[in-house]
Amino acid sequence: MNDETKKQEAARWFEALRDRICAALEAIEAEFDPQEPPRFARKPWQREGGGGGTMGILKGRVFEKAGVNVSTVWGEFSPEFRAQIPGADSDPRFWASGISLVIHPRSPLVPAVHMNTRYLVTTKTWFGGGSDLTPMVPDEADTRDFHAALEAACVKHDPTYYPRFKKWCDEYFFIKHRNETRGVGGIFFDYLDGDWEKDFAFTRDVGEAFLAIYPALVRRHMRETWTDEQRQHQRMRRGRYVEFNLIYDRGTLFGLKTGGNVEAILMSLPPDVSWP
Amino acid sequence: MNDETKKQEAARWFEALRDRICAALEAIEAEFDPQEPPRFARKPWQREGGGGGTMGILKGRVFEKAGVNVSTVWGEFSPEFRAQIPGADSDPRFWASGISLVIHPRSPLVPAVHMNTRYLVTTKTWFGGGSDLTPMVPDEADTRDFHAALEAACVKHDPTYYPRFKKWCDEYFFIKHRNETRGVGGIFFDYLDGDWEKDFAFTRDVGEAFLAIYPALVRRHMRETWTDEQRQHQRMRRGRYVEFNLIYDRGTLFGLKTGGNVEAILMSLPPDVSWP
Repeated sequence: MNDETKKQEAARWFEALRDRICAALEAIEAEFDPQEPPRFARKPWQREGGGGGTMGILKGRVFEKAGVNVSTVWGEFSPEFRAQIPGADSDPRFWASGISLVIHPRSPLVPAVHMNTRYLVTTKTWFGGGSDLTPMVPDEADTRDFHAALEAACVKHDPTYYPRFKKWCDEYFFIKHRNETRGVGGIFFDYLDGDWEKDFAFTRDVGEAFLAIYPALVRRHMRETWTDEQRQHQRMRRGRYVEFNLIYDRGTLFGLKTGGNVEAILMSLPPDVSWP
Repeated sequence: MNDETKKQEAARWFEALRDRICAALEAIEAEFDPQEPPRFARKPWQREGGGGGTMGILKGRVFEKAGVNVSTVWGEFSPEFRAQIPGADSDPRFWASGISLVIHPRSPLVPAVHMNTRYLVTTKTWFGGGSDLTPMVPDEADTRDFHAALEAACVKHDPTYYPRFKKWCDEYFFIKHRNETRGVGGIFFDYLDGDWEKDFAFTRDVGEAFLAIYPALVRRHMRETWTDEQRQHQRMRRGRYVEFNLIYDRGTLFGLKTGGNVEAILMSLPPDVSWP
């Protein structure tokens, strides 16, 4: 498969996954309340310098805010970033495609979640991504099942993946100034640049694992009643989510500093937040 | 006056100003509704390495959240920060005292405000600080009167202060990724290390100017009724405040990265925030 075909295949997969995820979330909304169920609104955007993407946002009854974005962009890294990106020091041109989602459920008993997979091309090519769960009210079964789904996706491909990528996730989603993790983790991987077919197959399986497990966790809790205290606790925990994303998240800071689409980048931020 | 006396004088002034500001805000609460008016809660904290401070927080009817903190701390800068702090490269010891406040009113028609003044001692000594206004619903008269109060404090001391410190404020409180200012500005000054008596007198006058003008702006609007749309707009504008503080504010990031008191540093964050 030539390089252009690989790019097309990857970008097409991210879009197809986006469609399936949006359909799955809309199906949950319709199941929760069949009366005029809310749908995703899609908003395309163009990137000055090359490419663009589509933001998808659902403001529903189960999902207070679900943002599911895809983008395929290309151009040249500015001088200050070339040294930081593998393969960009000798040639600043890049191409990147990916899907990124963050879901903030209304109920504090339904966990928030993040998932992202991407394919990068400079003079090197690699896949990256992962998914991590942020329960507001901890639930051992949810945490166990979420980890198990990601572990199953990993072990199909490489016995070292799960322990490595789980550790990477725990280290990455860590709020240093609070000395606490953002949530209960999951997996995080980057610079996966072995056999293209195998890496792509693994990346697809991470998406499939997310699609299999997250809707199940939502259905498990979406009809449970919650207390005002739990809602207030959720709003405060969302504040920690904001602190992580704005202070530490590489993708957020990189995007904001390189003139990325602010609306798409900050779609990760929760709709209703409180600090004490 | 010897160096120790200067430190004591400065620290004592910051505490006295804190007392007067807290009393002024509590008086507004009592005026707004004499029924069991809310009071500031004070919480002292110790700093490992030397010194400490007192957080003061008011959760009221007019002031949804007002945080007024004083601290006096000392110790040694870690190696990575020595080069960044005037006078700390040859000797890492420092002493610092200051007052810092952020007020988030409940009404979207009452402007939010920030004020801070501080005295720093390394092998050099200097004053810094400023105040800036963040109206949620712009009001020309408020903006004009706030700027005029700070200008009056400046012109008493030096004809160059106001234009320089106003520009510094506009440049400092700028949300780059949004290409917008945090609010309508005010003044910002730092590294003021001329004549100690004069610099201290100016710093005191900045505090006095704040104390004279801000309560007047609050009283001007606190009984006006607002709409749900204005409240929603306020919650969204507060999100911009969070973006600035967590991504750009030097003091916030420096504090979080040097093991400062997280609760005191993040007292600036609003109590009820929304992202779209």
